[in-house]
Amino acid sequence: MNGINTIRAVFLNSQRDALIILDQTLLPNEVKYLSLSTPEEIFQAICELKVRGAPAIGIAAAYGLCVVLRNFPGDSFEEFYNEFIRIKSLFASSRPTAVNLFWALERLDARVLRDRWKPLANIKEALYEEAAAIASEDEEVCRQIGEHALTLLRDGWGILTHCNAGTIATTRYGTALAPIHIGTQKGYRFTVYADESRPLLQGARLTTWELTAAGIDVVLICDNMASIVMKQGKVQAAIVGCDRVAANGDAANKIGTSGVAILARHYEIPFYVAAPISTIDMNCATGDDIIIEERPSEEITEKWYKKRMAPEGIRVYNPAFDVTDHELISAIVTEKGIIYPPYNEQLPLVAGRN
Amino acid sequence: MNGINTIRAVFLNSQRDALIILDQTLLPNEVKYLSLSTPEEIFQAICELKVRGAPAIGIAAAYGLCVVLRNFPGDSFEEFYNEFIRIKSLFASSRPTAVNLFWALERLDARVLRDRWKPLANIKEALYEEAAAIASEDEEVCRQIGEHALTLLRDGWGILTHCNAGTIATTRYGTALAPIHIGTQKGYRFTVYADESRPLLQGARLTTWELTAAGIDVVLICDNMASIVMKQGKVQAAIVGCDRVAANGDAANKIGTSGVAILARHYEIPFYVAAPISTIDMNCATGDDIIIEERPSEEITEKWYKKRMAPEGIRVYNPAFDVTDHELISAIVTEKGIIYPPYNEQLPLVAGRN
Repeated sequence: MNGINTIRAVFLNSQRDALIILDQTLLPNEVKYLSLSTPEEIFQAICELKVRGAPAIGIAAAYGLCVVLRNFPGDSFEEFYNEFIRIKSLFASSRPTAVNLFWALERLDARVLRDRWKPLANIKEALYEEAAAIASEDEEVCRQIGEHALTLLRDGWGILTHCNAGTIATTRYGTALAPIHIGTQKGYRFTVYADESRPLLQGARLTTWELTAAGIDVVLICDNMASIVMKQGKVQAAIVGCDRVAANGDAANKIGTSGVAILARHYEIPFYVAAPISTIDMNCATGDDIIIEERPSEEITEKWYKKRMAPEGIRVYNPAFDVTDHELISAIVTEKGIIYPPYNEQLPLVAGRN
Repeated sequence: MNGINTIRAVFLNSQRDALIILDQTLLPNEVKYLSLSTPEEIFQAICELKVRGAPAIGIAAAYGLCVVLRNFPGDSFEEFYNEFIRIKSLFASSRPTAVNLFWALERLDARVLRDRWKPLANIKEALYEEAAAIASEDEEVCRQIGEHALTLLRDGWGILTHCNAGTIATTRYGTALAPIHIGTQKGYRFTVYADESRPLLQGARLTTWELTAAGIDVVLICDNMASIVMKQGKVQAAIVGCDRVAANGDAANKIGTSGVAILARHYEIPFYVAAPISTIDMNCATGDDIIIEERPSEEITEKWYKKRMAPEGIRVYNPAFDVTDHELISAIVTEKGIIYPPYNEQLPLVAGRN
C-alpha cells in the first residue's frame, strides 16, 4: 500500500553535496526530483515554486546554504561569512511573505556566529547540523500539530482544505493535512474536499496527488464550489495552513483562504488554522502589517493554458495571499496545543519567546 | 471610440439569408463571425456554445428558423408547417435547460398558426417580424434592467461581477452588465472586477473581452480573490445575472455566485441580481426545487490546459450552478423595476402572470 512515507519533497542527497527537491511544478503529470547545488539554481527553484510551502522553503534554503558553502575555499571566517551573508540575502529575496524562510536563515546565521571561533570545516558541519535539526524539528512539529488537530475531527467527516499545506510542503505530514495523514494511519476515514486553488492550482495538482498517493479519499472542486459543498452538508470542518499569524490571530495564507473562512462562518462550520509556532509573528500586531505578495498577471491569463484565456493587455490583480480575520478562526492548532480565542491573550502564552 | 454598439453577438445579415453569430468559443483570442444558414449549422452552434446566454440562444433559434425556411418551395401550408416543426424540434433539442429557447420557438409556432390562412410568403415574413420582435424586446428588457440597476450604483464605483451576463449573452446590454454599459454611455466611470468564473472561464474570456471592447475599465481576478478585493475596499457593489429565481427570491446562477453573495454580506457590500421577469419561476417555491446540473469532470481537470491539472482518475465534483439564498440578495432588478425583500410578497406583484 502507498502511504505518506513514500513521499518526500526536500532533502539532501547521501553525499550531502546537493539539495534534492521534488519538482512540484511538474505534478501531477510527472514525479521528478531535481538535484540543486548552486545558489542560482536554489534561488530559482524557490522563486518558481518548484519547492513550495513555508516550512519546505525554509528547509530548502537551509540545506541550500550548506550545499553552496561546503566547498568554500580557504580558512578566513570573514570571507566565509561575507559569502554566507551574500547567499542568505539572495535566498531571503526569493519570497516575501513566508516567515519560515527568514527564520531558518536567521537560525543558521546565529549558528555561524556562535561557532565563529571554530575552524571553517566545523562551521560548515555545524550548518548541516542546524539545517538537519530544522528539518527534523519540522517533522516533529507537524506530527504534533496533526495529533492535536485530530482531536477536533471525527471519523467519517468531510474536510475542506485550500491550497496544499501537506507533507510535500514540509519535511513530513504537513500542517493542515497532518491530522488527515495521522488520522488515516489510525484508521479514520476522511473525505477531503480540495479547493483547486487558482491560479497555481496547488489543490488540484498537489493536494489531490499527495492524498491519492497516501491512499486518502479526495474530491477536487473549483474554489467557487466551496459554498455549495458546505451548503449541501458535505463538509464538517475546514482546515488550512498558514504563512504568518499576527499577534491578534489574523492569519495570512494562500489567496482565497479568507473567503473559505467567511463561508465556513456563514454555514456554521468550524474553520481551523494549522500553524507551527514559528509562523506566529508577535512583531505583527495585526494582519494589516503583513505584506501581501503580488505575482505576475500571466499566472492567471496564460499559465498552464494552450492559449491565452483573457484579452491581451487586460488588467489583472494577482495577490498570492490574503489575511483571514482572527474573528473567523475557530482555533489555531500549533505543536504546543490548540489555541482558542481571545488570541491576543492566548498567543503570547505560546509564542512569547519565538 | 469603441463602445457597446460595435459588439453584436447574434443578428441577421443584410440579405436576411444567414444568421450571423460571434463565435464565443474563440474569444478572447479571435473575433470571428460565423454565417449560418442550414439547420445543422445552427443546431451545432448552439450545442457547442458558440452562441450562449439564454436570451441569445432564443434569438439565434428564432432567426435560425426564418433563415432556414425562407426558401421553402411550393405553397402548401401543411408541407411548410411540417418542415417548421421538424426544425423547431431539432433546435429545441440543442440545450435542455435554456427556457428562453423553448419560449422563443413556441412564440414563432403560435405566430405561424395564427397566420396560417395567409400566403406562405406572408407567413415567412411574419416569422422574420416575430423573431425581430423577440430580439428588440430583449434589448428593451435589458435596457430597462440597466436603467433601474444604474440607480443603485455611483460614478467611480468598483463593481464585482461573476460569469458573463453581458451584451454578448443578449441582443444588447446584457442583464448584470447592462447598468455598466448604460452608465458608461452616460459618462459614469466604473471599474469592473471580473471573477474569472471557473471552470469555463466566462469571466476571463468573455466579460473582460466585452468590457474592453466597450471601453470600460475591467480588472480580472480569480474567483478566490473576491474576498480580498472586497476587504480592500475596491468594490462597492456586486451584481450578477441569474438563470432562475424561485418564488421566495432564491436565485440560481453560475457556480460560485452564492459564495460571492456571502462575501458581500460579510463585507456589507450590496449584492444585486439582475433578472428579466421571464427568469422568475413562481412554480419553484424555493431554491431547493431548482435542479443543479452537474457537468463532466474534464472541464476542471483538462479543459483549456496543455496537460492534465489533476491526477488521472481523481474524483471531481462539478456543479454548473448554485443557489443564492434570498436573504443574501439586497435587491432583484427586473425590467419592471427594483424588487426588495420580502421577495415572497414582492415577486408575485411583478411576476404573477408570467
